[in-house]
This record gives sequence, structure tokens and C-alpha cells, in this order.
Amino acid sequence: MTIGANTSAGIPRRLRLGMVGGGQGAFIGAVHRIAARIDDAYELVAGALSSDPERARISGAELGLAPERAYTSYEGMARAESRRPDGIDAVAIVTPNHMHFPIAKTFLEAGIHVICDKPLTSTLEDALALQQIAEGSGKLFVLTHNYTGYPMIRQARAMIAEGAIGKVRVVQAEYLQGWLATRVEDTGSKQAGWRTDPAKSGAGGCIGDIGTHAFNLAGFVTGLEVETLSADLSTFVEGRRVDDHIQILLRYAGGAKGTLVASQVAIGSENGLKLRIYGETGGLEWVQEEPNQLWYTPLGEAKRLLTRGGAGAGPAANRVTRVPFGHPEGYLEGFANIYVEAARAIRAFDAGTALDPDVAYPTIADGVAGMRFIDAAIRSAQADGRWTPLVGIGG
Amino acid sequence: MTIGANTSAGIPRRLRLGMVGGGQGAFIGAVHRIAARIDDAYELVAGALSSDPERARISGAELGLAPERAYTSYEGMARAESRRPDGIDAVAIVTPNHMHFPIAKTFLEAGIHVICDKPLTSTLEDALALQQIAEGSGKLFVLTHNYTGYPMIRQARAMIAEGAIGKVRVVQAEYLQGWLATRVEDTGSKQAGWRTDPAKSGAGGCIGDIGTHAFNLAGFVTGLEVETLSADLSTFVEGRRVDDHIQILLRYAGGAKGTLVASQVAIGSENGLKLRIYGETGGLEWVQEEPNQLWYTPLGEAKRLLTRGGAGAGPAANRVTRVPFGHPEGYLEGFANIYVEAARAIRAFDAGTALDPDVAYPTIADGVAGMRFIDAAIRSAQADGRWTPLVGIGG
Amino acid sequence: MTIGANTSAGIPRRLRLGMVGGGQGAFIGAVHRIAARIDDAYELVAGALSSDPERARISGAELGLAPERAYTSYEGMARAESRRPDGIDAVAIVTPNHMHFPIAKTFLEAGIHVICDKPLTSTLEDALALQQIAEGSGKLFVLTHNYTGYPMIRQARAMIAEGAIGKVRVVQAEYLQGWLATRVEDTGSKQAGWRTDPAKSGAGGCIGDIGTHAFNLAGFVTGLEVETLSADLSTFVEGRRVDDHIQILLRYAGGAKGTLVASQVAIGSENGLKLRIYGETGGLEWVQEEPNQLWYTPLGEAKRLLTRGGAGAGPAANRVTRVPFGHPEGYLEGFANIYVEAARAIRAFDAGTALDPDVAYPTIADGVAGMRFIDAAIRSAQADGRWTPLVGIGG
Amino acid sequence: MTIGANTSAGIPRRLRLGMVGGGQGAFIGAVHRIAARIDDAYELVAGALSSDPERARISGAELGLAPERAYTSYEGMARAESRRPDGIDAVAIVTPNHMHFPIAKTFLEAGIHVICDKPLTSTLEDALALQQIAEGSGKLFVLTHNYTGYPMIRQARAMIAEGAIGKVRVVQAEYLQGWLATRVEDTGSKQAGWRTDPAKSGAGGCIGDIGTHAFNLAGFVTGLEVETLSADLSTFVEGRRVDDHIQILLRYAGGAKGTLVASQVAIGSENGLKLRIYGETGGLEWVQEEPNQLWYTPLGEAKRLLTRGGAGAGPAANRVTRVPFGHPEGYLEGFANIYVEAARAIRAFDAGTALDPDVAYPTIADGVAGMRFIDAAIRSAQADGRWTPLVGIGG
Repeated sequence: MTIGANTSAGIPRRLRLGMVGGGQGAFIGAVHRIAARIDDAYELVAGALSSDPERARISGAELGLAPERAYTSYEGMARAESRRPDGIDAVAIVTPNHMHFPIAKTFLEAGIHVICDKPLTSTLEDALALQQIAEGSGKLFVLTHNYTGYPMIRQARAMIAEGAIGKVRVVQAEYLQGWLATRVEDTGSKQAGWRTDPAKSGAGGCIGDIGTHAFNLAGFVTGLEVETLSADLSTFVEGRRVDDHIQILLRYAGGAKGTLVASQVAIGSENGLKLRIYGETGGLEWVQEEPNQLWYTPLGEAKRLLTRGGAGAGPAANRVTRVPFGHPEGYLEGFANIYVEAARAIRAFDAGTALDPDVAYPTIADGVAGMRFIDAAIRSAQADGRWTPLVGIGG
Repeated sequence: MTIGANTSAGIPRRLRLGMVGGGQGAFIGAVHRIAARIDDAYELVAGALSSDPERARISGAELGLAPERAYTSYEGMARAESRRPDGIDAVAIVTPNHMHFPIAKTFLEAGIHVICDKPLTSTLEDALALQQIAEGSGKLFVLTHNYTGYPMIRQARAMIAEGAIGKVRVVQAEYLQGWLATRVEDTGSKQAGWRTDPAKSGAGGCIGDIGTHAFNLAGFVTGLEVETLSADLSTFVEGRRVDDHIQILLRYAGGAKGTLVASQVAIGSENGLKLRIYGETGGLEWVQEEPNQLWYTPLGEAKRLLTRGGAGAGPAANRVTRVPFGHPEGYLEGFANIYVEAARAIRAFDAGTALDPDVAYPTIADGVAGMRFIDAAIRSAQADGRWTPLVGIGG
Repeated sequence: MTIGANTSAGIPRRLRLGMVGGGQGAFIGAVHRIAARIDDAYELVAGALSSDPERARISGAELGLAPERAYTSYEGMARAESRRPDGIDAVAIVTPNHMHFPIAKTFLEAGIHVICDKPLTSTLEDALALQQIAEGSGKLFVLTHNYTGYPMIRQARAMIAEGAIGKVRVVQAEYLQGWLATRVEDTGSKQAGWRTDPAKSGAGGCIGDIGTHAFNLAGFVTGLEVETLSADLSTFVEGRRVDDHIQILLRYAGGAKGTLVASQVAIGSENGLKLRIYGETGGLEWVQEEPNQLWYTPLGEAKRLLTRGGAGAGPAANRVTRVPFGHPEGYLEGFANIYVEAARAIRAFDAGTALDPDVAYPTIADGVAGMRFIDAAIRSAQADGRWTPLVGIGG
Repeated sequence: MTIGANTSAGIPRRLRLGMVGGGQGAFIGAVHRIAARIDDAYELVAGALSSDPERARISGAELGLAPERAYTSYEGMARAESRRPDGIDAVAIVTPNHMHFPIAKTFLEAGIHVICDKPLTSTLEDALALQQIAEGSGKLFVLTHNYTGYPMIRQARAMIAEGAIGKVRVVQAEYLQGWLATRVEDTGSKQAGWRTDPAKSGAGGCIGDIGTHAFNLAGFVTGLEVETLSADLSTFVEGRRVDDHIQILLRYAGGAKGTLVASQVAIGSENGLKLRIYGETGGLEWVQEEPNQLWYTPLGEAKRLLTRGGAGAGPAANRVTRVPFGHPEGYLEGFANIYVEAARAIRAFDAGTALDPDVAYPTIADGVAGMRFIDAAIRSAQADGRWTPLVGIGG
């Protein structure tokens, strides 16, 4: 077992990382910073952490940035960093959704690799435009659908690719939370505030925030593409302006069927992302809250509990694992794996060398697919659940 | 705690029970007999166990029936038993679905109470006709949607009725099995054979066999009625003539949304009936394979594990429980609770006394609702998932 | 899979069963009656249900006994039944522990098979004397260590016998309850009352009530004998006259080591009987509260979840199973398996035919071993934990 | 909820950290480095990573150390670093056990704070001597009993301190692993090699490697001290020179009883550290492999599932948590909490300011207690389980 693979990721030199967003009180910014730090492959050296000059300065100081690299605008940061000989290699974008597009565009055009939080943008139009820009930029675009970084998700993906469960028939993806069961957005919660504001989150609420994670993960693991969907989107909390519960039927290319249910009003659920996949010769089940486990049932045999680092784990899982079985790795390690994979890709790219074919991370294409999913779901729901293909503007 | 309530059900005198179907090799017949026996409220005294005279005779002898009450036709049995002074009080019908109608009709018309396996019939027409017959017969009709007999299902139902989770928003019902993932019907399995034969099971396969259980249970627990549904029915096993995987979106009267997924091709699933219900002020979760547990989360509080007979169980659960907490009751005890409830109803009915208002069991109305569910789902699926109301012939 | 084996146990004729103890309000009497009834192998026809004539009469009527067979003394019952041509085949003894000896002696001497609740007696002297009587009587003696009846316990036993985990190294038996964490015996609880009264339960409290179950089960599954033990017995509830928490180190013949912990003050535990067994080439884990599951890990492989009736279950489990996988069997079915096995043994014995070698049930030898265990533990505890062999008077 | 508390630990300036041991292939060295990095409170600047000059150089380069600070001897490192104006603030000692003493002594005497892996030393004599040195040095000594860093362990500790379960009666600590069930030490495994070599690990094998963790954790959570113990130590794998399975009875000051079982031959166990604590008015249960959960049962109420960051978590847990409920934190985050707490203590100490009273970490006193535990257990086992007090040389 090649445990510890990722812990030696920190070699040659650390990549220089900048960050836009993620100042004081921002949850996901702190997560990205820890994720970047865990394997020592990055050094945070610059940031436009806040548009408020004073907060930007204080946040920068807290994070140990040199004062001149604690910018107050992302445009200024892109300009200045692109000119420095020791300028950032990559920027992490951790703002509300509606800002992803202009920021990513700016950095890509400044010749800087982008690591961007999900969903890709707040509209499908923006997503398609950004895809063009990214593809034309000659730079890498990494989307932090972080759940794809979990070792046992890699394991499941490899098993399906190798035929361990045969042709996939059924995909059940669900993502249940309960934290928005009341009007939390009225209590001053920054997290709840922008997520329920269509101007910042985009037209989708629950579907954009967590539904896209479930959609992406199901695709990552199965390798299947959704062709059409039939959606019912609901808003249960009175006065809320975006959906807070979604239930969607899926039809995959090749004949598989699926369901995707995501909720923010499922009281008692914390972060219940769950994937169940049934094929012609086996089944797989995985739950995010116990991420070190993967249940595998071969047809006609007893169910097996595969564990990260354990007897049933293979190379796809082991290459992104750090500590032995029974020592749980969690959300931050899974997130860190996206950063490690990104570092591998950036180094190979910048060095002009071949990328290890095992390296995997979500790209802008995944981001566009996610936006097509949101778009199709909203259109289907507006048409009372009509089966709607996942295409869109020019798609 | 009034543990042991059901164990004293055997008083006044045992009811005399007959059975149609359930001869050698029939799984559900044996289940009904054990269920009837557990609380000593019934005595099996007559049967039309098989249409083959020799098998009928042998099966009767094995079950200790008097030779003259081991009938070879249900018509003959109904006729003879209705004339005996010690004739049966009730008949249990445990044949394939398509025979429920004529048999139930015959016994009701002979003035004998009916305890019938589910689904009610093989067509909605039959169901509606039978409902009329039953209502005109002045006899009781008990449908063995046995999962409603589990004590913690009773607990959940009582909690929702008492407002423990507030107004229900979301219902997630699922019933996953994997035993029909291959062409088991070609291997000589009697169980698989009739279930996949539309002539015997009706137009629905998975939906009739297990989908109706999930549908019924969700309704029993929430007290809500499905108004419309959007269904996608699939047949994954090549050559199979009925559906083996269904996924359905539900809209309830009053605004709740739901999903119902049932599968017979979910390899690794055994008998995965599961119910999750989320309301405005709490959530409930129950899994058939751990039936003595009920998870309850009040809004803003820690999740609680309520157990049968335990501190969190109330009178609705305790009145159908036999042994103390930690001593698991299972499928047969849950099934037996239907028989005990039926016995209570039959005794009160026959004595002309008031029925204890806590007694609950599925009736022919539930059976008709289940047939409307099947009917609507098939029509919706044929119309590519159009939202379809749960009505039907004359409904 | 030969599911349903036990459901056809009711053939030739039902055995005639009597019961001593188990009148109104007695938990374990009702359990024995249901267990005897489930597979239709017995018919309850006589009882000395209470020493109070009025209660005996009413209890008998409630259970449908003929008035003349509702006895007021067990001596009278033994005498009368042994003379009737249709006298009982076997008697079930469900009184407090201290009465097991005189009652069993009386019925054995009257030529009636005995099915007796555990522990065998209240003293080791009584146990040894009873063993002599039983062995001289030419009658069967079945001790209802009911947990040995669970199918997955049979599975574990067969696997160990077949070498699935190699030579056993470690046995961890525990039995945690919390219901006696306070002075329940002062609240009028009949169950708590006699269990904490040394005159009725014997010198051991927790050790006799549940410790012996754990001891017996570990021996049944592993086939190993405890040679010596080192015990620490505690009484945590002030004023209680018997132990309510025990922790014991075990040394088995052949070199295995073990621990046995039983408690009645472990708040949050319901009926937590658990067995973990580790051998040279594998491990097994079983928990009474999820009795349909058995965890099996072969050396160097992933853990497997074996389920009753499932792919990993073998003939030893299947022959005592009734319903398919996923339909949980519980405490009462496990208990019923002891009664079915007893019926098989009694029939073979009375018919003078060979007994199916797969039939297994706890005997008086197990009862004596259990009393030696209690005796050795009490002596060890009195000697401050000295390693004490499991022998005793003449042993 | 003050989620994210630890993520802002990186302020004023990073502490300068050195490391002894932990070169290529060393598992625990990498763990310490990640733990130190997660919250950005440390910067690794020096190391004596290997006694082999070439390996020391390469390992240093890989970790980004300046060449002149990649030392080949710990003595040289202590000397040089203590003279540098930018010398290390603290050293992490991650060598096999027998080297802890001389290395810790050297750095303490050089005026450098010590963060040392457990167990403290390989003999009790060394431990006592080191305690004197540490106490005389005026420097801090942090022992990485990392499991004390888990938030829900902090929660359990706070709850017990606040009386949530009343006076503690029973402590059940267990730590089951299976990875040494065969002679892994003969396969070239570095991890297995030194752990089973008494010259490197000390007289205790399993007891020192994992038994001390369980011992320490039980003490940390309950606040109770073990007075005497009765131990049975076993070596199951033929030819192994240290124990690989231990079972110990404990008696605590104040009257609580306990068991401690640790094993390295429990096949199917990965890293099964588990704690169950029962008091007069409640019970708590925690399992390391699901570290974000804590089960709590108040007397007479339903069991509750407390989760990290969830409704039931209090300030003691929240101050060492980073991400919201449902986003699992794991082993590395728990380990990192020890490093964060150490950083808080070092900063306060070096600044001469008062230490936040909530800061908690294992100290050299805990290390000495652990060595007394090992020493007493070995002496008890040698005296055939005699109850043996936890004192020792001069104790």
C-alpha cells in the first residue's frame, strides 16, 4: 500500500497561490487555504480578500501576506501579479457565484491558472463564455467539486471503469441538508444570505449550491452523461426567492436511469451527500459523512466493506491517501486532493511535460455541464416536469 | 411501559381461520400462518391450499386440518364453511394477485371476513368492483400491508398526527431489492415466476409487488394523500415482461412533495424499505431492516434514536409490542400485528361492540388507493412522465 | 436456500406442553409461549401458572387451558399429568431461579421432559444434584439459553468449526444493559424485584441474569472451554444486594484469552449482547440487537457482511430460518428455534430414532457449566481476582 | 457556532519548528508535519531527519529546509539552533520510543520547547528522569496523545466535568487493531519492525503502542485516575518478543471500575479506539473511526447523537473545530488540534501572558502516567494478575 503518496507532494518548489474572496468570516476561503496547505504544495502569497480596503488589509495581515500583495481589487491583483517575476502561479476564486465569471476571465486573460469554486457561474451564458475564454487562454481551469477528491470516490470510479459492477443501470444521487429549514437568511448569516439571493447565487438555490455537487459526483464516478431530466423544484420556506428542495428524474446516455434529490430543509440531515449505483453485476454505495468506506456487493455474494487504505482499496484510491486505514481522512483531505491534483497538473503544464494519466480533477467542462444541469432543471420545472435535454445556448 | 399488550390477545376464544393458497413451497402462506399464530388469536381450521387435489390433501394434513376441511376449490370451501356451525370466521387469501378478486368476492358473498394479501387485485377495475362488493357485504376486509404493523411505524404515525415535526414538506419513500437483477424467473423460482408474469401479477411488476408497499406506508404514516405523480418505469432485465425498477415524483394534497423509488435490480439491497419524512419543525427516518428504531430530529436539536419499548416510545407503539427494548421484534411480529388488529376488529364487529379507536389496519380503501397508484403510474409513464392524478375508472 | 425450514416443523402431531410459572405479569412466560407457538410444534395444555389458586385459574382460562389442567401446585401437576394418557410431553419451567431445582426434579422424576429457563439453579450444589437426577431420569433437559437459537449464531459456530477463522485467539463477550441503573427494585417492578433478591436469583445478580448468557454463547460459538477466570464484581446501586456490573478475564483451554463484561448500569444500553472472536486467520463479530447480521473478515481481505438468508449464509443458519433475507427475524424467532430443536429432539427420543446431528440446544451440562462460571467468578472476586478454575463441588 | 476557530490560529507569526526523525518512509513524521501545517501556526525550518547524512540531506531538501539546517545529528541541531537568532521555537520528536529520552533531554537543556510522540520513553526510569529535567528546564513539554484533540472528545470531557452523566461508575476503553495478526515484522515493514523490537519500543508492545493511547484518553475524558490494575498480557504471534494483545481490569480512585482491552491481532479491526463511559445519570460512547459523533444517553431518555458542529456540541468542542457539521474532520485535524493548542501555550509562555484556561494538551505528567500504566501492567501480568498500584520508582 502506497500510503502517504500525497504527503510528498510538496517537492520541487511550492506553487505561489493568490486568492480572491475569502476574507474574514468567509467559510469556504478558509477551507481552500487549509486544502492548499495540507500537502505543502502551495504558498499563499497574494490576495484580493475583500473589496473593503481596511478589511482587505487586515485579512491579508492575518494570513501573513506582504502588505503590497494584499490587494483591494482583483483587477489590480491580476495586473500586478502577472508582472511580478515572483507572481502567483494560480488564483483561487472563492467569492459568491455571480463574481466567478469576471474574476476568472480577468486572471485567465492575465495568464494565470484558475482554481474556482463551484458552481462555475451564475448563468449558463456566462459559463459558455468562460469556457471559450478558458480554452483560448492556454491556462488550466480547475473547478473545486471537492467531493471528487475523496479516495473511496476514486475507488468507486476505478471499479466501475474496470467493470466491477457491469453496465450501470441505476444511479441514485442525493444530497440532504437541513440547515435552511427556516429563514436563516433573515438572521444575519452571511452563508445563508448570498446563497438565497438570486443576484449572487444565480437562478438556482439548492440546485446550484448542492445539487450540482451531486450531479457532478454521479458523473465523475459512473462516467455516464445525463441526456434528459424531469425536474420538480420547490421552495418550502416562505418568502425565500430560490429553490430549497429539488427532486429530479434522470435518463443517462446508454439507458441508465437515475434520481437526484437535494434538499436544504431535510431536518436532521447535516451534509448527506450519498451515491448508490447499481449495475448488471454489482452494486456500490457511498456516503459522504463516512467517506472512508465504500460498500460493494458483487452479484450473488455477500456485501463487502471496502475501506480507505484497506485490503479492498486499489491504486486509484491509494494515490490520494495519506494515513493508514482506520485513521479517518475527512472533508479537508478530500478537498486537499483537488489542490494536489491541480498542483500536479500545473507543474506538468508549466514544465511542458506529460501529465500522469491518473491525475483527475474537475475542469471547466464539468462546470459547463453543471450549469447545463441547472438550466435544464429550471426549464423542465417551468414546463411542469417535461423531459428536457441538457443543452442550452448553442449547446 | 405496557409491554406485552399483544401477548394477551388470545383471550375469549380463538377465531377460526381458513386459508386460500399457501400450499407447499408458498412463502407468503407460511408467513400468514405464523403471523396468525404468534398471539394465539386464530386457529387455522380450513384451507383450499392448492387446486391440485393431492397437494391440497397433503398440505392440509401437514397443517393439521381435518381432512374434510382441506378443500380443493375455494368455491367449495366458501360454500361448506358458511354452512358449518363452526365455520371459519375469516379467510386469508394468499394467492397470486390475479386470484384475489374472485376469491375475495366469493367469501365476502358467503358472509366471511376477508384478510387479503396485497396488492388488492391485478387491475383497477377489479379493485373498484371488489370495493363495492366489500362495502355491500357487511363484512370486514383487511389488506395485509404488513409494514404498517411495525411498532415504530405506529410511533412515527402518532408523532406526525400530534405535530412532532409540524406540517410535512417532504416524503422520501424507497424500497430497494436486488434479487431480480437477473432472469431468476427462468430458474424455476415460483416466487419470481408469478411476480414477473403480467397475467398473474397484473400490469405492474416491481410497482405492484413492492412499490405499493412503499406508497401505502408513506400514506399510513403521514396521513397525506398523493394528488398527482410523474413516473418513469423501467425494465432492466432483458426479456422481462413487467417493470423491475420505478422512480416516481409525488405531489401531495396540501403541498408536500415526495419521491418513491422501488427496485428489484439494486444489487446489494435485500429488503430496503425506507421512509424519510421532513416537516417544518422536525424530521423522521425509519428503515425496515432495523425496524425497532426510529430516528427523530426536532428542529435545532440533536438527533434522537427512539427504540421500540424505549424511553421515546409512546402508547401507539407500545400497544403493539411484545418484548422489552433491545430484544428485537421483526418482520413476523409486525405482520402478526395486522392479524391481531384484525382479530380485534372482527371480534368487535361480530359482537356489535365499539371498536377501540386505536386499532388500525389497512382496508380495501387502501387497496383501491394502491391500485390507483399503480394505474396512475403506468399511465404517467406511458405519457412520458406527465403529471397524472390518482383517479381512474369512475374515480 | 432452504428458507422456511422451521415453518414446517409442525408436522406429525403437536407436542403437549405444560408450563410452571408464567402467570399474569410474567414477562418470560409469555415469551416461552410465543416461542413454542411460532412453528406450531407445541400445544399448551396444562399449567401451574401461579401458586395463588385464583390467579392460577384466571391465567389458565386466559390461555385456554381446560379448567382441570390449570393446577395450583407443580407437584400436583406432575402427578396428574404423568398419569393422563394425553399427559404433557414436556414442561416449561419459567419461575424465578431458586425454584428451578425442585420443579425440574419433580417433573424429571415423573418421567416428563424439561425445558427450563436459565440460569439452571440458584446454587452450584443444586445444579450438580439436578444433573445427576436428569442423567438418571432418561429424560431430556433443555435449557433456554435462547441466544444460541439465532441463525447467524449458528452460522458463526459452523464457520469456526470449519476453520474459517483458524485457531481462536481472542474472545470478547459483553452484555450491557442499563435498566437497573437506579433502584428499580424499589418501584414495584416484579422483574427487578426477584432478580435483585439473592433468595430468589441466587448469589449472582447481573452475572446470573445476563453474564451466564454471554458465557454460554461464547462457548457455544467457539466450542472452547474456559479453564480459569479472574473476576471483579461490583454493585454500583446503593443498597442493592447482588452484583450489577461484572468484568472478568478468561483463559480458555488451548490458549485463547477472553474478556466478559456484563452490566445492568450501562445507561444507554438496551440489551447489548455482543460477541467478537478473533482467530489466526479471521475475525467474526455479532451483535444481538442486529441479529440478522454477522461480520466476517478473512485475513488480508475486506470485511464482509453476512446476512441471515443471504449469499454468505450456510446450511447451519438456513435450517433455523423462516423468512428471506432483509425480512428481519428477531428475539422471538431465535427463542422459537430452541423450542423447535427441542421438539425435534423429543420426537426422536420418544420414537427411539436417531437424532439429526445438526440439531443443537443447550443442555443441563451447559447449565452446570454456567453455574460453575458463576461460582468461580464469585470465589475469584472474593479472593481479589485470583485466577480461579471453573470447577466446584466434586467438579 | 464559532466554527472555524482554529483556522485563524496562524496569526502573529508562525512558530519555527524543527523535527528529529521523520525522514523518508516514516509514517508518523509526515503526520506531524501535516498536523503542524493545517492551521498555519508553524513553519518547519530545521530537522535531524535521519542519522544517515545522505538521507538527512535528501529528506531536508524534499521538505524545503535550508541545507545548513538539515542536520545529521540531533545534538548538533540542538546546539546550532539554540544559537541562531532565528532558531527553532520547538522541536517535534518522532523517532522510535527509545530515542525520546536523550533527544528530549538535549533540546530541553538547549532551551527549546519539546513536542514529543508517545509513549514518553521506553522505560519508567527514563520517564521519571525526563520529568525532572523538563520541570527544571522552564520549557514546555507536549506529548502527542493526539486522540485528545478530537472535538467530540473535548465535548465528552466537558460534559463529564459539568456533570452530564453524574458520578462515573464504569469506563470501557478498547483499542483493537488487526494489522499485526501475522509476523509482519518479518516482511520488511519498518512500522512493524521497531514496534516489535523491545530495544526500540520498550518492554511493552501493544500496550505501549496503543494501550497507552486508550489509557490516556480514558483519563483525559473522565478526569479519573487509575489506582490499581490487574493485567493479562499475551503474545499470540509465535516468535514475537513483545505483547500483541492485552486485557486489563482497572480500579479508579473514587470507586469507578474499568476495562482496557487493546489488541493488534483482532482481524477485521482497523484502528478501533473506543470509549464508553457510564455514570449515575447518563452514558457516553465514542468511536475513533467515526470521530465526529458522540452518543449521549441521559437517564430515562432516548439516546442522542451529538455531532461535531451540531446542535448538541458546546464551546469545548467548537473551539477546536474548523468546518461545519456533516463535513467530517478526521485524524489529521484531531492531531492538528494538539499542535494548535501547543502553539497557543508556547506563545503565551514565551510572551509571559496568561494562558487561555480552555487550552488542553497532554503533558509530561501524562507521559509519566502512561509509563506507570505500562510498568504496573507488566508487573501485574508477571504476578499472574495481582492488583498492582500505578506507582513505580519513587512514585
